[in-house]
Amino acid sequence: MQIILLSGGSGKRLWPLSNDVRSKQFIKFFKTEDGGHESMVQRMYNGIKRVIPDADITVATGKSQASSLMNQLGESVEICVEPARRDTFPAIALAAAFLKYVKNIDEEEAVVVCPVDPYVEDDYFEAIRRIGEAVIENGANITLMGIKPTYPSEKYGYIVPREDGTVESFKEKPDLEGAKALLQKNALWNGGVFGFKLGYMIGKTHEFIDYKDFTDLKARYDSLTKISIDYAVVEKEQNIRVISFDGDWMDVGTWKTLTDVMEEHSVGNVHFDDTCENTHVINEIDVPILAMGLKNVVVAASADGIIVADKNQSSYMKPYVDKIEGPVMYAEKSWGSYRVLDIEDAGMTVKVTLMPGHSMNYHSHERRDEIWTVIEGEGVAIVDGKNREVGIGDTIFLPKGCKHTIKATTLLKVMEVQVGTDIDVKDKIKHEL
Amino acid sequence: MQIILLSGGSGKRLWPLSNDVRSKQFIKFFKTEDGGHESMVQRMYNGIKRVIPDADITVATGKSQASSLMNQLGESVEICVEPARRDTFPAIALAAAFLKYVKNIDEEEAVVVCPVDPYVEDDYFEAIRRIGEAVIENGANITLMGIKPTYPSEKYGYIVPREDGTVESFKEKPDLEGAKALLQKNALWNGGVFGFKLGYMIGKTHEFIDYKDFTDLKARYDSLTKISIDYAVVEKEQNIRVISFDGDWMDVGTWKTLTDVMEEHSVGNVHFDDTCENTHVINEIDVPILAMGLKNVVVAASADGIIVADKNQSSYMKPYVDKIEGPVMYAEKSWGSYRVLDIEDAGMTVKVTLMPGHSMNYHSHERRDEIWTVIEGEGVAIVDGKNREVGIGDTIFLPKGCKHTIKATTLLKVMEVQVGTDIDVKDKIKHEL
Repeated sequence: MQIILLSGGSGKRLWPLSNDVRSKQFIKFFKTEDGGHESMVQRMYNGIKRVIPDADITVATGKSQASSLMNQLGESVEICVEPARRDTFPAIALAAAFLKYVKNIDEEEAVVVCPVDPYVEDDYFEAIRRIGEAVIENGANITLMGIKPTYPSEKYGYIVPREDGTVESFKEKPDLEGAKALLQKNALWNGGVFGFKLGYMIGKTHEFIDYKDFTDLKARYDSLTKISIDYAVVEKEQNIRVISFDGDWMDVGTWKTLTDVMEEHSVGNVHFDDTCENTHVINEIDVPILAMGLKNVVVAASADGIIVADKNQSSYMKPYVDKIEGPVMYAEKSWGSYRVLDIEDAGMTVKVTLMPGHSMNYHSHERRDEIWTVIEGEGVAIVDGKNREVGIGDTIFLPKGCKHTIKATTLLKVMEVQVGTDIDVKDKIKHEL
Repeated sequence: MQIILLSGGSGKRLWPLSNDVRSKQFIKFFKTEDGGHESMVQRMYNGIKRVIPDADITVATGKSQASSLMNQLGESVEICVEPARRDTFPAIALAAAFLKYVKNIDEEEAVVVCPVDPYVEDDYFEAIRRIGEAVIENGANITLMGIKPTYPSEKYGYIVPREDGTVESFKEKPDLEGAKALLQKNALWNGGVFGFKLGYMIGKTHEFIDYKDFTDLKARYDSLTKISIDYAVVEKEQNIRVISFDGDWMDVGTWKTLTDVMEEHSVGNVHFDDTCENTHVINEIDVPILAMGLKNVVVAASADGIIVADKNQSSYMKPYVDKIEGPVMYAEKSWGSYRVLDIEDAGMTVKVTLMPGHSMNYHSHERRDEIWTVIEGEGVAIVDGKNREVGIGDTIFLPKGCKHTIKATTLLKVMEVQVGTDIDVKDKIKHEL
């Protein structure tokens, strides 16, 4: 069975932990059994691996997320990178082409596409397996996951099933009265999960898009129409069935819904007094947070900023966050992470963490010198072609124009002081090593 | 007229902005006319200078505060440093000895002692001038400032005046019924302000303490009994008068009282939504804080930590703050300031800011190397006796044991990466230059 995990989106609804480069699925909110924390994408990926061990997972994502995915899921994760931002149909078409033309998956094999961002338990992964099995057995072209609704919500799509499991109709985001009427008809929420045989989707993609193979489709990806799979395929398909899922399923797109599913009231260095109620504090920075006498409040602190909000009010953050400008202060990359510690007119100080065996790109800058000081671990610095072994306390001066990289032998931490005017992430020229 | 400003205390009631090395009077809460912010000590010092231009001010303080005082009030401020922590009588005795034996002030001159930490307006400084004048005119040995009480508080001392301005009795911290009864008798709160002729206090100090001159008293300061001036002198004095002050006067020792007197709802990079009520945010760090839907909340963020508290609840912070451990992350010094940006097992990164013309002590370390990178300004580094002019982008390697300092020609900012084990502020040996 093939799973295509859709890891899309980015945005600021969970600011300051989500931002332009860090989608909510990468934030480590959830407690693991070993006492650590995992992100939504780790939870989803590991859950599928655990419950459906024979499933092959491919993550379909944009290029801005590939690095974070490798950081969190490991280098060996199969990623199908969309060269541009389109909607779910182009993304699924590309992933399907990847499975057929690159991985040589048989067209009779079941594929289940699912979003990465609902909060679910293991029974959800079992439902995914049932959908994969149903794809082979039930003869339908598309098998959907219908979520048993818990209340008449206006924000989901509704699937009205017949008794035999086929689908009578769809209704996207009804009003409250409409939602109530749909619940009377045993309608199910559309969980965004689609099961089909690989050949079916390959056929659909060739119907819509004139392409030869994966490489060809990728090359013309830029020019594809933005359209969701619901509009492009599902709404037009007659031979469609739905499998009902009534376990825990929650859209955790806001601080309020997210904190509802957190097992702990805090993550990170956090202290509460005895009078806090229904208050959650997520602290990603080094200094302690003390919360006293708060009711229904969420506090979140990251290198980018701090929000302190009444949980209900936090849903209305977008216009306020849009006004807050500033560079991205923290990012996870395939090779490790970086964090901006200080910004001055003529300089910036960045802490770079490299995972063992990894290195950054070989690159140079036109408008800044850099001074590296190794503060943890060992590695090899390469400056204008010359190798030099470095360890704690070693400094490397990198004048404007010099080509440089550093490779981590062990976990390596480097304090990088950038000095120059017009310091900008775009001032970076990559070179072949 | 001589003013002795008592700048004492330290503590955590305004954590994370106050801490073991930074007393509340140094936090810049108050808006100035030019749009900047000033601290309580700056407000008090500048207010006295403005309203009583002919007053000479001496700040009596502990050695831990001398550096911060010079940073905030300028190098030329007259400071009488207590070599150890005693109570107000030894502090005033030392300051009086300083005025007589070092400054050669006439024993007939009026001295007014006042605490640095009430929140007051200009009429308070005028009342101080009236007390200084009364000291000369009224023939009393001590003239107190009596604050017109606004409510029957249990936390102040009460002075019961006679109609002629002499004092009938004192009552320290009565219970609520007692306070109400005292208000009926037109009792005044004790504002902690004492006026006297210099010779009177010199006489009292010689009565209690066997010393020759300022240097002698300072040398034996360690051995003095801890006693307040109220117990040592005021309570025993018969010839005492009180002058009533009924302007604004407020003890701003807690987040609740402090935010009551702040003119603005925020200091620093702060954003509010439209639904916050009676909420104050003080942000001393670089990243933005967004507050949404909060009622009666105070948020304060510094390099040491973040508090988010219901204003009433914040008064009970002490036991929680006591549990929070960590090094001091930010300090103002006579020469500038330092801020810890990052702490690792084998290293620490500190941003050092030196004011023009200033330098740090000439010193060495036993257990750490340091790497300096100049990120702003120009200066002269001295390493093992050798001078070197440095500017932006220059790095200086300071191995263990080397003697070093840097002198700022202009405002100078240096990123200091410390590398070594057991990094500790105590690992510092001072040398003569």
